[in-house]
Amino acid sequence: MSASLLKIRISHQGQIALGPGKIELLQHIVQHGSISAAAKQMRMSYRRAWELVDLMNHCFDEAVVISAAGGAHGGGAQVTAFGLALIQAYEHILQKSAQAAADELGFITQHLQKN
Amino acid sequence: MSASLLKIRISHQGQIALGPGKIELLQHIVQHGSISAAAKQMRMSYRRAWELVDLMNHCFDEAVVISAAGGAHGGGAQVTAFGLALIQAYEHILQKSAQAAADELGFITQHLQKN
Repeated sequence: MSASLLKIRISHQGQIALGPGKIELLQHIVQHGSISAAAKQMRMSYRRAWELVDLMNHCFDEAVVISAAGGAHGGGAQVTAFGLALIQAYEHILQKSAQAAADELGFITQHLQKN
Repeated sequence: MSASLLKIRISHQGQIALGPGKIELLQHIVQHGSISAAAKQMRMSYRRAWELVDLMNHCFDEAVVISAAGGAHGGGAQVTAFGLALIQAYEHILQKSAQAAADELGFITQHLQKN
């Protein structure tokens, strides 16, 4: 219950290197093998999805997504092994944080307006 | 080290009930006893600071900040005991999360571009 209200971002030099939106985008790229298909699933423009991928690729010292050449919207895209490790690390951070701070999250949840 | 890159938000019905900016605003109100002085410290308009306070007051079932009547920008504001408890809960969530997920945060930090 508490996990769903906890939003975690990893910031780097004033930018968000990882957050709920970027992780969801990566998960869709894993599933669909394409940035444009992932963007469609998230009702996001291809341009915006591409910018988010580009930002992640520049934040880290290893590529997160690699795209194949070809076509207007590219010939598919793949989340790298490093990108998969980032998704997993992010999910673990979320799980461990929700668990470690369960008391405090419970206190806050209990006082949120119900309607 | 890892704590500084970890940003935590508590969302509620699509809004951010608590996050780094709102907590900093509350801390300034505690320190200065006024929303306008707190806004000034954060280089934020009085209107924006007031809106953030109003949003917090509506997200929770108890008041977070109470303002005294008087003057154009009010006669001072006070963070309630409940507001102080929220600040403390938020800080504990941040500390406990950083500690519980230290390995994963270390992995991510290690791969962030250095320059």
